[in-house]
Amino acid sequence: MKTVRDLGEFNLIHRLQRALGKANPTVVVGIGDDCAVLRSADAKKFLLITSDPVVEGVHFTLDTPPRQFGWKAMARNLSDIAAMGGLPRWAVVSIGLRPNTSVRAVEQIYAGLRAAAQKFRCEIVGGDTTHVKHEQFVVVTVVGEVERSRIALRSGAKIGDSVFVTGTLGGSLRGKHLTFTPRIDEARWLVRHFPVHAMIDVSDGLSSDLQRLVEAAGQRIGFEIYAAEIPLSRVAASSLTAALNDGEDFELLFTLDPRYVTALRRRWPRKFRLPLTEIGRVVRSRQPVTLVDAKGKKQSLMPAGYDHFAQRR
Amino acid sequence: MKTVRDLGEFNLIHRLQRALGKANPTVVVGIGDDCAVLRSADAKKFLLITSDPVVEGVHFTLDTPPRQFGWKAMARNLSDIAAMGGLPRWAVVSIGLRPNTSVRAVEQIYAGLRAAAQKFRCEIVGGDTTHVKHEQFVVVTVVGEVERSRIALRSGAKIGDSVFVTGTLGGSLRGKHLTFTPRIDEARWLVRHFPVHAMIDVSDGLSSDLQRLVEAAGQRIGFEIYAAEIPLSRVAASSLTAALNDGEDFELLFTLDPRYVTALRRRWPRKFRLPLTEIGRVVRSRQPVTLVDAKGKKQSLMPAGYDHFAQRR
Repeated sequence: MKTVRDLGEFNLIHRLQRALGKANPTVVVGIGDDCAVLRSADAKKFLLITSDPVVEGVHFTLDTPPRQFGWKAMARNLSDIAAMGGLPRWAVVSIGLRPNTSVRAVEQIYAGLRAAAQKFRCEIVGGDTTHVKHEQFVVVTVVGEVERSRIALRSGAKIGDSVFVTGTLGGSLRGKHLTFTPRIDEARWLVRHFPVHAMIDVSDGLSSDLQRLVEAAGQRIGFEIYAAEIPLSRVAASSLTAALNDGEDFELLFTLDPRYVTALRRRWPRKFRLPLTEIGRVVRSRQPVTLVDAKGKKQSLMPAGYDHFAQRR
Repeated sequence: MKTVRDLGEFNLIHRLQRALGKANPTVVVGIGDDCAVLRSADAKKFLLITSDPVVEGVHFTLDTPPRQFGWKAMARNLSDIAAMGGLPRWAVVSIGLRPNTSVRAVEQIYAGLRAAAQKFRCEIVGGDTTHVKHEQFVVVTVVGEVERSRIALRSGAKIGDSVFVTGTLGGSLRGKHLTFTPRIDEARWLVRHFPVHAMIDVSDGLSSDLQRLVEAAGQRIGFEIYAAEIPLSRVAASSLTAALNDGEDFELLFTLDPRYVTALRRRWPRKFRLPLTEIGRVVRSRQPVTLVDAKGKKQSLMPAGYDHFAQRR
């Protein structure tokens, strides 16, 4: 009997996606991007929907301050909205609690959820509560919107594009994964001022998320990533591997026509303190992701990010 | 230290609701109805959002065929959309799976989710998957819509209204809770043809859900329910208590101006085979719910439906 672990998360999702079949005409993008993209009554905007589970023992532990995992549960979804260039509007929260959990802890979870939502003018409008015996969980669903002319999908990378990443990568599990700021302000600014070709948030690790941009492109493209340019977080400073594979960075990874690079480099630091780094380019290649070292030596980079069922780490 | 069990589910939700504070102007109804009701770009319609968790050991067991709990996880949300008089449009699914679960079982869960969604032209457009060690769960969020002129809230019950319930009540846990049909067709027909004052789906038991209509009314109303009129399901035939308190019936409970009762009684059976029963009326009362027996003797009916944390049953 083939189990979920045997198949792995990506294959499982692909299989389920195929099983869902062809979507109706209101669905612009279904499963397979950071959010589902839907045609709404507003002819100038798309509706965005995303839903992410956060589970005790996987995404947080009993030692995690409840306010922090509330924040994380909301912020992960906001990061998905950011990855489309969108604005969050409403959130619903489904939560599984052990009956012996203190009311104070539940209020702190909600304080965290609310703090993250309010920071980006997202309103918590509903949800439901249930009891669990073992692992507590929080599932947040966020509905947002984005101008049709500004949406950034995973699928738009073009040969010749420059590749950028915000912030620094690696070592998120030492703390950042619970307190990170979703890059909504940055993403909104980017899609307003630049024709971003493809965008994703780095959630499973740079190596895996680059692979996803390749798959979404639907043509033979590849990434050449300059190892020396990858912005390492201080906690992961000594480890390129951590920056490539740790995941949960929740930074923006995007591609842009090279003729806009000069303008972006000039304007970004006037607007944001957050680092923005050009880490590579999109090339015609059968090799999805190639890492180029300081001497120009190339090696294939395999996706090694987080698989929920393989439990590699 | 006060725990979630001490406080109970309803009090917990009330407390969290207060903590969320005043909603922004896009929110017509936030936490406290079957769905959140939101102003969208379409001036003639409201957007509806609802999210419900289904957890192993609470809502289904290891013996439950996976296809059935998939169906249930989707149908519960569709029932919430029905309770507003709305139409479901899109669904996202967050699912927690043990790694040793068979791929076949996961496909069956999705087959159930999809079957329920497709029956009502709702499209599964996304979601996420995570692993759990113990209890598996499925959280479905459904986004729907309803004409502003036709929406049915919990809050509209008026003194003098007649009270109706569809189908039969009680004993759902013997099987119906896994296979029930959300009353979307019936609810749509009702709100198209009749000015329904208040509506809810019977999920926690008639006694509890009547109480909720009283609380939502925001004025001193009460229900007089004729015990002999309550339509008992065959499996609960001998037990009025089961019909009052079991819950998970997922039938429609609504109130209507009495001058439309004759027309409703005439037209309903031409359209539906499902029973429709007038079970009481809305009165001016300090007593939320009063049960009237065949001899006219009255007794107060206390809510005794399902509380997720009190674990009364």
